[in-house]
Amino acid sequence: MQRILSTQLPAHVGQPVRIAGWVHRRRLLKSVAFLIVRDAGGFTQVVVTAPEARALVEKLTEETAIEVTGEVVANSAAPAGVEVVEPRVRALGPPAEALPFDLFRPDLAATLPTQLDHAPLSLRHRSRATALRVAAAATAGFRSTLDASGFVEVHTPKIVASSTESGANVFALDYFGRPAYLAQSPQFYKQLMVGVFERVYEVGPVFRAEPHDTGRHLAQYTSLDVELGFIDDHRDVMAVVRSVLAGMASAGSHLAPIEVPASIPSVHFTEALVIAGAPADEPDLAPAHERAVGEWARREHGSDFVFVTGYPMAKRPFYTHPDPARPGYSNGFDLLFRGVELITGGQRLHQYDDYVAALAARGEPIEPYASYLDAFRYGMPPHGGFAIGLERWVSRLLGVANVREVTAFPRDRHRLTP
Amino acid sequence: MQRILSTQLPAHVGQPVRIAGWVHRRRLLKSVAFLIVRDAGGFTQVVVTAPEARALVEKLTEETAIEVTGEVVANSAAPAGVEVVEPRVRALGPPAEALPFDLFRPDLAATLPTQLDHAPLSLRHRSRATALRVAAAATAGFRSTLDASGFVEVHTPKIVASSTESGANVFALDYFGRPAYLAQSPQFYKQLMVGVFERVYEVGPVFRAEPHDTGRHLAQYTSLDVELGFIDDHRDVMAVVRSVLAGMASAGSHLAPIEVPASIPSVHFTEALVIAGAPADEPDLAPAHERAVGEWARREHGSDFVFVTGYPMAKRPFYTHPDPARPGYSNGFDLLFRGVELITGGQRLHQYDDYVAALAARGEPIEPYASYLDAFRYGMPPHGGFAIGLERWVSRLLGVANVREVTAFPRDRHRLTP
Repeated sequence: MQRILSTQLPAHVGQPVRIAGWVHRRRLLKSVAFLIVRDAGGFTQVVVTAPEARALVEKLTEETAIEVTGEVVANSAAPAGVEVVEPRVRALGPPAEALPFDLFRPDLAATLPTQLDHAPLSLRHRSRATALRVAAAATAGFRSTLDASGFVEVHTPKIVASSTESGANVFALDYFGRPAYLAQSPQFYKQLMVGVFERVYEVGPVFRAEPHDTGRHLAQYTSLDVELGFIDDHRDVMAVVRSVLAGMASAGSHLAPIEVPASIPSVHFTEALVIAGAPADEPDLAPAHERAVGEWARREHGSDFVFVTGYPMAKRPFYTHPDPARPGYSNGFDLLFRGVELITGGQRLHQYDDYVAALAARGEPIEPYASYLDAFRYGMPPHGGFAIGLERWVSRLLGVANVREVTAFPRDRHRLTP
Repeated sequence: MQRILSTQLPAHVGQPVRIAGWVHRRRLLKSVAFLIVRDAGGFTQVVVTAPEARALVEKLTEETAIEVTGEVVANSAAPAGVEVVEPRVRALGPPAEALPFDLFRPDLAATLPTQLDHAPLSLRHRSRATALRVAAAATAGFRSTLDASGFVEVHTPKIVASSTESGANVFALDYFGRPAYLAQSPQFYKQLMVGVFERVYEVGPVFRAEPHDTGRHLAQYTSLDVELGFIDDHRDVMAVVRSVLAGMASAGSHLAPIEVPASIPSVHFTEALVIAGAPADEPDLAPAHERAVGEWARREHGSDFVFVTGYPMAKRPFYTHPDPARPGYSNGFDLLFRGVELITGGQRLHQYDDYVAALAARGEPIEPYASYLDAFRYGMPPHGGFAIGLERWVSRLLGVANVREVTAFPRDRHRLTP
């Protein structure tokens, strides 16, 4: 008999079935025992009356993997309107050992460190599993939006000869006896691939040796990277951000609904300072300023999202393209989501001489970037892009304070297992 | 005017258009110049007669990024039946520098090392770009097949506390002052995630410090990993292999057609030895044996694919599940594609005590695996899975001898840039 999922039971009323899953919970009453079986689809209530089956169920502790054959009957009092009766229960292994925390309660009672120490177990809890499903749906929406717009998926090196962003916070590696580093972003690689496909994206791990213990930073996270060529300026990139966010929101809407407006409001950095009541010579937005701009967007435009454009060049990476009309300001933008920075992007430099000048202006040598910059000698169009931190998106969408709660196996300064 | 792609030109005959791309080739005849512009869709022939435009075109060397406005006219002699006349040509940057090799010829004349040194340029050549498009299509087909079958995408750590496969060929890392390693596979993580979602997959980089210079090995490659629970044995895994391969082949069929039979032939290891004319006590299949089995599958079943099942336990990883009926043999399999191993997979151990016994039998300590094995105390169902090396699949599908030819920026013992 083919195994079916709990969600398929209503179509099998009156029939024998085989289900399988985990012992989610047992309710051992005097004359009857209820066995709640959890599978990939949901839950099945199994009604146990026969003494032999009862004796077995009493031994099968929570989280034991089991298989149940029985008959499906309608019962409007059962969780999904159906239950399985006259079961034959078979353990697929020995009974699970005593759990460090209960999984059947609505909330995980264990502390976050305990949850993370036992990640294979805590991830089975609905709250944790749902966050990972939201991440999977968001990633699928990201890709399907871009696939439909002529973007090509690429895979780029995670081991590099020199740091791609500024030199700090980089993991060093022994690469066949010589030094190498873990890539902090696919920044230059995705730019180079614009020369090949015009429009590219990558979903992959990036690595930051973050020395800080915060709820926002991880040593490894999943970066959703996009880059496109033949743009007029950063506004073409922002249009892609909007459609990608809509695709991500749409794909996960059954799990975590969010509305992405047809047009995301946008303010220039100088206006953002005014909205936030900050001095006009502030070089960047502080968290309080971002919150103020987020509240403004909510109040004036009914939007959870707002672009801030034209950040001062001094605060953006050297590959950022300046605003031709206001050279101290950039064609770089941030997208704030509910008052916190979610996405950074912008137009990049695309001419070799401009890179040489930008590095010289910052007193940085060309040599570490030489193998990337070479490509800009051979015809690169105006281009730009952006990156979304997947775990950060999910945590903010679900209103979770610590990004570790939405990461399967987080890595930080103190955590390297499991 | 909105930029259009070369592929959209036939719908614009008689209209003014704006196109953009790279100077692919120039043909400077006496009375007329032809400018071939390459974009993401293909090629546009631009007819240049005005002296001013001609003078500019003479300066714009191959690979310069340009924009052209002009009128579309039908011309059955032109490559796509249309061409652009009376162009205004604008360079989007300075002329490209002299190229190290030509990109417009049917084959890249440069040696492979030279191509790889100038990857951002060589990848623009059709042969190289097509291979990456095949990889992107295969990955999309892999995911869509699994998404449709209830699999959930996961992202797992690439920095680990101990090697997940045997200890050799692992990159060591300084992780906040203590030793760590780059993951050689997501093996245990995908197994643990079966406890959460039953069926999972991951597309991500894996790292092997391969000391050998071969055409088959890279220090980083993209692994397509699958794992599923509640299986009867490895044959349930093989059924997923078959549907995934069909999905990958179907998604890329416009670029590289391949037929995946509805049922892939399968032989037991002991039969494979007979087919190959090898001694019955051989512990593994040598490359010549694999070729013989591949030829047999082609001859007897008309199939490019053949499963070999039941490899001896001694030659499989410690987490492999034995064949209950023949304990010296495993529930592990290889899939041979055109006589070469493409996929390795099988049923895994799922009970904690079996892991302890398997490690003891090999004289290996439990400690390095402790944080993974813990999960097997808490109820894991029978499960199994497999992994496909993306670059290996693409290279064999295209009949390319060296996997570096189908990898954007390969990493090996000698190569760390670009």
